[in-house]
Amino acid sequence: MTILTDAFADRNVLITGGLGFIGSNLAIRLVDLGARVTLLDSLIPQFGGTLVNIAPVRSRVIVNISDMRDANSLDILVQGQDYIFNLAGQVSHGDSMRDPQLDLGVNCVSTMNLVEACRKHNPAARLLYSSTRQVYGRPEKLPVSEDHPTLPIDVNGINKLAAEYYHLLYHGTYGIRSTVLRMTNTFGPRQRLRGDRQGFAAIFLRLALAGEKISLYGGGGQLRDFNYVDDVVDAMLSAITHDRCFGQFFNLGSERAYSLIEFVELLRQTCRFELESVPFPEDKKIIDIGDYYGDYSKFHEVTGWTPRVKLAEGLERSLAFYREHKADYWP
Amino acid sequence: MTILTDAFADRNVLITGGLGFIGSNLAIRLVDLGARVTLLDSLIPQFGGTLVNIAPVRSRVIVNISDMRDANSLDILVQGQDYIFNLAGQVSHGDSMRDPQLDLGVNCVSTMNLVEACRKHNPAARLLYSSTRQVYGRPEKLPVSEDHPTLPIDVNGINKLAAEYYHLLYHGTYGIRSTVLRMTNTFGPRQRLRGDRQGFAAIFLRLALAGEKISLYGGGGQLRDFNYVDDVVDAMLSAITHDRCFGQFFNLGSERAYSLIEFVELLRQTCRFELESVPFPEDKKIIDIGDYYGDYSKFHEVTGWTPRVKLAEGLERSLAFYREHKADYWP
Repeated sequence: MTILTDAFADRNVLITGGLGFIGSNLAIRLVDLGARVTLLDSLIPQFGGTLVNIAPVRSRVIVNISDMRDANSLDILVQGQDYIFNLAGQVSHGDSMRDPQLDLGVNCVSTMNLVEACRKHNPAARLLYSSTRQVYGRPEKLPVSEDHPTLPIDVNGINKLAAEYYHLLYHGTYGIRSTVLRMTNTFGPRQRLRGDRQGFAAIFLRLALAGEKISLYGGGGQLRDFNYVDDVVDAMLSAITHDRCFGQFFNLGSERAYSLIEFVELLRQTCRFELESVPFPEDKKIIDIGDYYGDYSKFHEVTGWTPRVKLAEGLERSLAFYREHKADYWP
Repeated sequence: MTILTDAFADRNVLITGGLGFIGSNLAIRLVDLGARVTLLDSLIPQFGGTLVNIAPVRSRVIVNISDMRDANSLDILVQGQDYIFNLAGQVSHGDSMRDPQLDLGVNCVSTMNLVEACRKHNPAARLLYSSTRQVYGRPEKLPVSEDHPTLPIDVNGINKLAAEYYHLLYHGTYGIRSTVLRMTNTFGPRQRLRGDRQGFAAIFLRLALAGEKISLYGGGGQLRDFNYVDDVVDAMLSAITHDRCFGQFFNLGSERAYSLIEFVELLRQTCRFELESVPFPEDKKIIDIGDYYGDYSKFHEVTGWTPRVKLAEGLERSLAFYREHKADYWP
């Protein structure tokens, strides 16, 4: 894998959702690489964004609090940016069903505003959009590659898919260089562990750290793949600097699939907590995708990217971070 | 083909976009079948809706002028409806590129409001959504069947696809009975011939009637399929009364593909106008899908539907209608 690290020195970078989990990790890396970084975040409560996330680089980035549903501020903010990482959004599948209009606004209206702002004010920018495996819906076969049909089973998956299409359409129509990464379960430092909006990895980490009982639905045999956040940051930097990526979407993924019970057993190596199996709740079942793991070979072929941090090591690093920053992220 | 015509007698029917081209033809048929029809329309200028369209049944329907982006009015209007035909929307590909946020509001926000209103206030309603072949983008092979990949090449196609997904999701998740019809070029009486928002069939009809020159891009060899509006009304009535349709999407289509030059030559049998070939304009080319004709065998197998009015006959009927109603529809 080659990351063109000098590609970012003295370059202007905008990260939407820049105070969130992945956005802040990306920001810290980009500051290290010498980029001039602007972080745009709406700080909608409980979405995951917080100034705490960027403590290590607070004085070396520009923070702009605004909501991307407001097109006017975006028209200004995109100007002069060499790279734009579009990470803002609502990620909770359950929330998207409870408040579908909010999800539509935050994921579709916002993204449309961004690509329109680029078309009008900065068509030379390079864009990366962070999408989700949720666009595939329930896998017909495993591992899931990019030619798998897309039939989302929650509002979030539908809206993220539309937002992907906006990016690719503006590439195809106006030449705005955009790449889409379909991410799977990302975990690591700076994730909001409180509440249940950031997926099960965050929930399990919190319960394990707090020594509270973890309940696995239906025995925990479901298969998933995982990426440690540093690998995701690598993938984003690779994607946005490889011209061959533009106009396409790519899966991320891990070295192999893990069952949820394996995930929890890894946490148990250093944390003490009870474990139980409970029946699958009805409201979760209707938006559950069953087993999933992705095939990332297409992205590997173009960029050379491969995940480097195995699940066990990533969990170890994550636990160390959260133990050190207990008050900021949990309980 | 069997249409369960007694399915509509004394039943409550809501048609969104009910004052538009297809909506008004559907309304007239449903009134004939004894339904109690409510027509919802925003009458956004130039979208195609007009009270003139329902002149034959004006005193026998309820007209409700409101915008579906307003969720509150929908919450009321869906109550007590047995059937809901969701035909409202923005259909111009070009307009969707010029004002993508309007297209997003009118096609996505509105549809989300409708399915949410049904979930909350009328989960027993049967819904039909009128979508478009535009969701497929440029065909990889012809004829296009429903398993063809969807890669829209304009904002309208993206937003209509998201709106399809909302309907199907609410069926899969909440059991709200929804069917999606992917329509191709529909023509016939009550279409807005003015302007250029309703597709080339309307434009060519207007020019032919007015005796003005018709310009074909690149010689007019492009293949298309066509449905006369009465056949589309048949299809909608069939779809919404066949339980096996719910949760699925279906193509419509015609008995065979026609080139644009064939279409225009048919108009020339009774209209006098000049014809010229011009190069494909750049702004049209980027959202042109090339040749398209759809495979409607899936819909035929489930419902028995087949188009009955051939292009020549449909054009003859259309010209007769527009000659009789010149002042209302053109020039």
